[in-house]
Order: sequence, then structure tokens, then C-alpha cells
Amino acid sequence: MASILCRISKTLVNHRLPPFTKGLIRPMVTLSWPFQSQPRDLSLPNPSWSKEMLQHYELYNSQCVGEDGKEGSGPWRRLPSYNRLLKFATGGVLLSKIIQSEARLFTRNIKIPGAGFEYVMFIKKSQEKCVCIFQAGHLLEGPPGHVHGGATAAMIDSVNGTHATYVCGPVMTANLNINYRNPIPLGSTVVLESMLDQREGRKAFFSCIVTSIDGSKVHVESKALFLSISMSRILGG
Amino acid sequence: MASILCRISKTLVNHRLPPFTKGLIRPMVTLSWPFQSQPRDLSLPNPSWSKEMLQHYELYNSQCVGEDGKEGSGPWRRLPSYNRLLKFATGGVLLSKIIQSEARLFTRNIKIPGAGFEYVMFIKKSQEKCVCIFQAGHLLEGPPGHVHGGATAAMIDSVNGTHATYVCGPVMTANLNINYRNPIPLGSTVVLESMLDQREGRKAFFSCIVTSIDGSKVHVESKALFLSISMSRILGG
Repeated sequence: MASILCRISKTLVNHRLPPFTKGLIRPMVTLSWPFQSQPRDLSLPNPSWSKEMLQHYELYNSQCVGEDGKEGSGPWRRLPSYNRLLKFATGGVLLSKIIQSEARLFTRNIKIPGAGFEYVMFIKKSQEKCVCIFQAGHLLEGPPGHVHGGATAAMIDSVNGTHATYVCGPVMTANLNINYRNPIPLGSTVVLESMLDQREGRKAFFSCIVTSIDGSKVHVESKALFLSISMSRILGG
Repeated sequence: MASILCRISKTLVNHRLPPFTKGLIRPMVTLSWPFQSQPRDLSLPNPSWSKEMLQHYELYNSQCVGEDGKEGSGPWRRLPSYNRLLKFATGGVLLSKIIQSEARLFTRNIKIPGAGFEYVMFIKKSQEKCVCIFQAGHLLEGPPGHVHGGATAAMIDSVNGTHATYVCGPVMTANLNINYRNPIPLGSTVVLESMLDQREGRKAFFSCIVTSIDGSKVHVESKALFLSISMSRILGG
């Protein structure tokens, strides 16, 4: 049992977690509950991913490896993604089974691969930029054959929000200002680029551009404001 | 067979459809395809609706009946909602089976009652106002126990967009500017009020306020710009 816990612990510690969870992470071997498991990372490739999605994933994933050939020493870092934000916190998998156990992250609530949001995010270690490769499934329709403006907004909020969390710690969206330029066809793969524009005390300003995979078409441009908050506020305190 | 088609035709014609579909509606008896059916209206009450949701539904629904006691002659009108926007068009149910048949409207893509977006919209016949009663299911989580900012954005885009369609005909969202004031607890029922602020040629400006069911707490305030477009653009032309 100890060796299993040690292995789980190592995996958990090696897992890349947002900065606000630092200090909250305890090695699993010190926990008395033996059934804690590693949550499933939903940002890894699955058979529904298009050729473009896979190619772009590989492009960034290869840059997570440094010149020394070591995973994690490159300029980019792949960000894990679970079906609840709660799972990033200490004991989050267990908490998730106790607190509103049926709740699921909005952008990960559809189990059928490829039907909803398929996405993976990478952050530059220097933290000024975060990219997301997003394949839009057939359950995200708005105008016939195209992605719903709300689904695009959800992805922008997720990418900017994840970026903001890595830069500032716990945050809440205060403003989202989205300009829709060209509709996104259902089934297509697009790239979201989140940029940190400015920080002012508790405020952090971000922008985002959504383009076709080859960068030739701009679909959406947006600005967002995030406010740093306490962890207890995020947990509903 | 003719009597069945007549009955279906009568139901279809009595159904309230957006203004842009006027003239596109042909009585069903003139169609040669006998298997056309009325799409299921997803804005009608189901067992997952909370007491607050039902009470508010009744409040507006009762105002759809006029002083003469006739359904449809009151100051408000309940808007139907299907699992694809395509189903509002002529022969849309049939088209929906042919064109990207698996596609589903983003806000109606979860079949389990109460798990995703439960909502119903009412428009004032004078058209300056549209309200939506929205119950947020457990699959819409963002911060633990609260609704994802993207899910709220999706509802705002839907309510403002539906309102804009009734006022202007076919439209596309050009801008959505959302200020998040207080997070919405998962499972709660809130009210979205869409207001027509201004029209300028092809442009129509709307605002939206999202409050708790008793109006005591403001969750979100937003502004939106919609552009009138041709029906062929909506269909991807």
C-alpha cells in the first residue's frame, strides 16, 4: 500500500498545478485516506481530435521539452484540465465526491469525445502568454452550422481565467468584452491566444484573439478584467 | 391522413415564430412529405423546475392571456424553444435531419432535465423588453458551487439574441460586454431582463441585467450590439 501511495504522491507532486495551490499540496503518503486517486486529465489527445488539432498540440507539446531533452524544462508548459476546478485543490478529488458531487465544469460536462469542447492549453513559462487549441463539437451550435457565441465566450473566459490564475492566483472574472468578427464553423479547430496586458493592484487585464488554425482568419477579439480574490471566496465563502 | 396534416398545420401556424420566418411558413397540407412533425418545445415546464421557476413562469404566462380570456391576446408572449435554431425555418425539422443532423443548440444540448440550462423566455408585445427565467443546473459549474461565467454569457447572448431577432429579423452578435457583479449559485433560479436601447440602421443595441428571482441581488449587467444580416448568411452562405 505504501508503495502505491508513494507512486500516487509522486504523480500528484509532479503534476503541474496553479500557483495558488502551492503550499496546499501535501504528499499523499501523509494522508490517512487510502482511496485518493489522480483525476483524469482531459486535455490529453483522444481519438476525436482532428489532424490539425493533433499537429498543433504536438507543436506546443514538443516545446515543453528543453534542450536537455527533459520533459518540463522547455519554454512552454502544458496545463492539465479536470472536470471540476475543485480537483486542483488539496484533497479536491475527495472533496468533489462530497461537495455537490454531480457538479461538472461547464466546458467539460459532455462525456462523448469530440461532441462538446475539446481543448488543451499551454502557458509560456515567462507567463505573458497562454494558448489554447480548441476543436468545436457538434453540440455547441448557435447559428446553423456555426459555434454559439456563448460557447466562444465560455472558451475565452476559460483561457483568460486559467492564464490569470497562473499569473495572479485565485481570481474571478469582473468584465468580459467580446468582439465577434467571423463565425466559427462547427467541427473546426481554432487557436485562442491569451495575453497579459497589465496589472494594477488586484486588477489584471488580459486580451484574447481567436484565429483559424493557420492564423489567416480572425474570428474573435476580446478584453477581460480579472480581480484577485481569496481562496475562501472561490469556495463560496 | 389529410385531417392529421391539417391538425399539424394548424398547430404549426398557431405557433409563435420569429418575424423573419413570416412568409417562409407554408401550411403543412401543401407539403408532399407526410412525416414532418412539430418540434418539441423545450421551454415548457418539466419536473426539474424549482418552485420559484414555476411561480415566475406562471406570473408571465398568465399575462399572455388577455382580458378577453383568450390565449395570446395578453401583453406578453411566451417564446418557444427548440434544440436547433434551424427548426424555426420552413421545413426546419426535416432540414435538421439532413444538414449536420447531430448538431444541437448549445443551450439545449443536455437531455437530462435540470442538469444544464432550464429556461423560458417571454417577450412584451410592444417589443422593448424580453425576460428569461433561468434555472442553472449542476453541469454549468465554474468556480466550485457557482455558475461558469461562460454559461452566464451564453444565456445573455441567447436572450439578447432572441430579443434582437424578434425586433430586427435575422441578426448576428457583434459585441457582448459583460460586467460580473455577484456569482450565481448552482441550482438557483435567476431572471434575465433584456432591454432594447437603440436602433441605428443595421445596428441594434441591447442591455441585459441578471438578478436573483426576488430582484434583490444584481448578478450581472451587460451591453450587446447585434447586426442585421441576410438569412443566407445565417445559414452559412
